[in-house]
Amino acid sequence: MERDTRVVLLGAGNVATHLGRAFTRSGCSVLQVYSRTISSAKNLAARLDCAFTDRTDSIKTDADLYVIAVPDDAIADLAARFPLKDKMLVHTSGTAGMHDLQVGSTRYGVLYPLQTFSKTVDVDFSQVPLFLEVARTKDRGFLDAVARRISKKVFWASDDQRRQLHLAAVFACNFVNHMYAVAEDILEEKGLPFDLLHPLVQETARKAMAAGPSEMQTGPARRYDLGVLETHARMLAAKPEYRKMYNFISKNIRERYTC
Amino acid sequence: MERDTRVVLLGAGNVATHLGRAFTRSGCSVLQVYSRTISSAKNLAARLDCAFTDRTDSIKTDADLYVIAVPDDAIADLAARFPLKDKMLVHTSGTAGMHDLQVGSTRYGVLYPLQTFSKTVDVDFSQVPLFLEVARTKDRGFLDAVARRISKKVFWASDDQRRQLHLAAVFACNFVNHMYAVAEDILEEKGLPFDLLHPLVQETARKAMAAGPSEMQTGPARRYDLGVLETHARMLAAKPEYRKMYNFISKNIRERYTC
Repeated sequence: MERDTRVVLLGAGNVATHLGRAFTRSGCSVLQVYSRTISSAKNLAARLDCAFTDRTDSIKTDADLYVIAVPDDAIADLAARFPLKDKMLVHTSGTAGMHDLQVGSTRYGVLYPLQTFSKTVDVDFSQVPLFLEVARTKDRGFLDAVARRISKKVFWASDDQRRQLHLAAVFACNFVNHMYAVAEDILEEKGLPFDLLHPLVQETARKAMAAGPSEMQTGPARRYDLGVLETHARMLAAKPEYRKMYNFISKNIRERYTC
Repeated sequence: MERDTRVVLLGAGNVATHLGRAFTRSGCSVLQVYSRTISSAKNLAARLDCAFTDRTDSIKTDADLYVIAVPDDAIADLAARFPLKDKMLVHTSGTAGMHDLQVGSTRYGVLYPLQTFSKTVDVDFSQVPLFLEVARTKDRGFLDAVARRISKKVFWASDDQRRQLHLAAVFACNFVNHMYAVAEDILEEKGLPFDLLHPLVQETARKAMAAGPSEMQTGPARRYDLGVLETHARMLAAKPEYRKMYNFISKNIRERYTC
């Protein structure tokens, strides 16, 4: 019987947490969590029932895969301190280049999960698209097999494609969520709960997925309903940043559909 | 046996189409569709199996409820030409005031469906929140009963609250959809399909509904990951409008969560 894939997580944030759970559930062994913040390492290790450390020179040497899941600007530094030059090392970033890991190991690559993770919200990892890349062709099979253990949606993508995916994801997730938050603020002003918008939020997502968002654009900016646009701008007089955003996005919608 | 409520639709766009179907399905009779564009009136009438006209002086006189579903800037004009001063007349606008209908009838009000409608996409109308208002208290029971025939989510809201709901909906639906469309554009540049973002789109909506959007904000702007923010701005160099939008929304996110 082939032994299980053994993983060390370098990082203890949202991505490390969800990846750690996915590995554990799929039968891989998470051996250890490293974080420069010992309490974070300890907390995640407790959830995954594994060892932890805050010292790079105490990283366990007998794992098959080392996964860096830290903020982009900390990746290169952590890779430089990675003590195992012949072990498979991947990062999980959409934007950092694969070759940022070159200083860490001769065997390196990327495993980028295209999803939004919060520690408190569970996610069905089998549906999370994973975008892979490796520096050496001979590591391809190994990373592919590990990825398929935790997700049904495994793709190969270059640095260039992965960056583009991440940029698109900022619009489709982070900016979308901000629009929800602004809507919540606007309702709160009149004591109205965000719940009232749930059917709209759901339907908007459903339609965009069913028919593509360009086909489904509605609203005063799309219709160029000047009366409504002006009323809305007036209603936002006390929130100049929201008014600017309203006018800017409305103008952008109008231009997109009239060119 | 009480006879069915009889409805005339004034307008033949997205809202009229979905309301018409909801009325028909709930057992109300749609008697006629009026539109100043005869072909639109005819098309919708064919779907609802009813009469149609493009002349206000040919509007049938024996309905119980007349529903104006036209763009906001056409409501007052249509109300002024409404020939039945004692019939219940409502509009379906989020932003137009109820009293815009005063010129049309002594009995008037609002029935505002808070949802995004496209002619080609069916919707479960029973889940669409309806916000009602009437000028005369004695019409309250009638409009409430009609609304409850077509939706399980009936609320009463003032002009002021309804306007606020509509403004919030522009952010949570129209602007959200535009963010999806921009994401689609960005992916298209590299030949990547929007489908890759479906799990992200779904999860973003799900989390915002489960825990509230402010709690769920993630991404480079929230973390203030300057390296990623700068990389993304550079990637959008060829699309100055998208770059401006990226920077503006990122700044707004950052400010919201650091104050």
